[in-house]
Amino acid sequence: MTERLEPANPDYRARVTDSFHRQAFMVSIDAELTHVAPGHVEIRLPWRSDLTQQHGFFHGGIVGVLADTAGGYAAFSLFPADATVLTVEFKLSLLAPAQGEALRVRSKVVRSGRTLTVCHSDVFACADNTEIQCATALVTLMRLDGKPDVPPASS
Amino acid sequence: MTERLEPANPDYRARVTDSFHRQAFMVSIDAELTHVAPGHVEIRLPWRSDLTQQHGFFHGGIVGVLADTAGGYAAFSLFPADATVLTVEFKLSLLAPAQGEALRVRSKVVRSGRTLTVCHSDVFACADNTEIQCATALVTLMRLDGKPDVPPASS
Amino acid sequence: MTERLEPANPDYRARVTDSFHRQAFMVSIDAELTHVAPGHVEIRLPWRSDLTQQHGFFHGGIVGVLADTAGGYAAFSLFPADATVLTVEFKLSLLAPAQGEALRVRSKVVRSGRTLTVCHSDVFACADNTEIQCATALVTLMRLDGKPDVPPASS
Amino acid sequence: MTERLEPANPDYRARVTDSFHRQAFMVSIDAELTHVAPGHVEIRLPWRSDLTQQHGFFHGGIVGVLADTAGGYAAFSLFPADATVLTVEFKLSLLAPAQGEALRVRSKVVRSGRTLTVCHSDVFACADNTEIQCATALVTLMRLDGKPDVPPASS
Repeated sequence: MTERLEPANPDYRARVTDSFHRQAFMVSIDAELTHVAPGHVEIRLPWRSDLTQQHGFFHGGIVGVLADTAGGYAAFSLFPADATVLTVEFKLSLLAPAQGEALRVRSKVVRSGRTLTVCHSDVFACADNTEIQCATALVTLMRLDGKPDVPPASS
Repeated sequence: MTERLEPANPDYRARVTDSFHRQAFMVSIDAELTHVAPGHVEIRLPWRSDLTQQHGFFHGGIVGVLADTAGGYAAFSLFPADATVLTVEFKLSLLAPAQGEALRVRSKVVRSGRTLTVCHSDVFACADNTEIQCATALVTLMRLDGKPDVPPASS
Repeated sequence: MTERLEPANPDYRARVTDSFHRQAFMVSIDAELTHVAPGHVEIRLPWRSDLTQQHGFFHGGIVGVLADTAGGYAAFSLFPADATVLTVEFKLSLLAPAQGEALRVRSKVVRSGRTLTVCHSDVFACADNTEIQCATALVTLMRLDGKPDVPPASS
Repeated sequence: MTERLEPANPDYRARVTDSFHRQAFMVSIDAELTHVAPGHVEIRLPWRSDLTQQHGFFHGGIVGVLADTAGGYAAFSLFPADATVLTVEFKLSLLAPAQGEALRVRSKVVRSGRTLTVCHSDVFACADNTEIQCATALVTLMRLDGKPDVPPASS
């Protein structure tokens, strides 16, 4: 890819981390932001019995949640300080059962435009010190300028 | 659509309901299965603060969870009694903020094949007795014959 | 859907028709624009041996071409006179062989925003006076204001 | 990716090449199969005025045709000798104008299952000895066993 990934905001890491921890859903499922770099984000989610589907594996929707969230923050890491991020759409292909002690998602920006950013997210099932790719996704994000990344009520 | 939607299993409603309630994640977020018909499923999810993103709306990933789950059960409602369902992939377009006192998803089968089923899911944000469509999705499901729809450990 | 579909340009029909006929690829494959209404477009494509895959049916990529193009013009029909349209992404699910004497695609706008428009396209295989749905698609389009809908060389 | 890509048929290259040249549409647009390896395929398409949209660039649908076709043959390269391939669905994100003297698509298998294969296709616009990525896609293919990869009429 010829795309250069330069953050518009030197403080990008603090902004991503801060926004991530204001996502009540991420906090409630014990998701951890394990890596942030310009255009790259990694999230880890430990297995918990209340995150499963009828076979006891991670719910496929949870895999989508991770792919979407990691894509959103990979995009957000490149944004200027006064912009927030919105998911336009995402497409998730499930490749193997999301089975193991944790899920790990890695997302990277493949195209960073003025309005739209496209990210590629890969999700891995972690078990016994090995990782098996269980999903891959494309995520389209929109940059909203002049919108603070905080709840409307507190702005 | 010329597709006829006939359940292979007369007991489809009990099977869908039973499987839904064995999805720990659906139970843990208080999702309600509000309608089941051959090839059609409706799920309602009341707002809860721990299901939100950084702006206080429903997390986009949760919208995907609903679209995926409703698609899965719309497909499953047409399956024979010895088959289980697996999500192959889904694509979600977010149309408006998922903002309101509840989300409602309606999914219907648009193509029911021997191996693959394709469903169309629409998600609505409910507020003050009105519904605004906040997402639309296409979901591809796979039928696995001879696999009971229960956790491996208990089979 | 609560979306109202009102064209921003009363001359929308002429603009869509004119732009369609400037798409060399549409002309070269003998595609016909058979219906234009605000937010709705229908295209018909007669079978031709040079549009097929290895089994003699319409090439799956051609089905995607129709879904994408119809979505683009359904969106474009609602745009102001000084805006052009760009496809952001599309997702196509193939439901049945694209087999018959013609393909027909119908696309409608499901969400018309200031920047992004989302369309739903259904493709049908026409044979012996019946239509069988052979594909369904979601298409995301972007509105570019102040850009004439003509080739750069001639602007 | 932990996926090993081993062709089930030692004669995979001849089968891919042969099938590609029986796709009338690929032949009619002058597409060239420039590389075949197990689970990898590359196709090149020279610019031609009849493959363009209203701005004179390659039609977005043509970009999808390439992503789909390359994905199909990347999957097919791993199949046994008596199996054919069918596209289940694909999702294409357009990243930059498909502008230049040729397009090049590279597709690789990311998951090869008994029934379903998932490929990742990247499309590049070639101009003045440089390549700019203009699209990325995920493609899901189905393996049909016991079906010869030839037109029904001649089987």
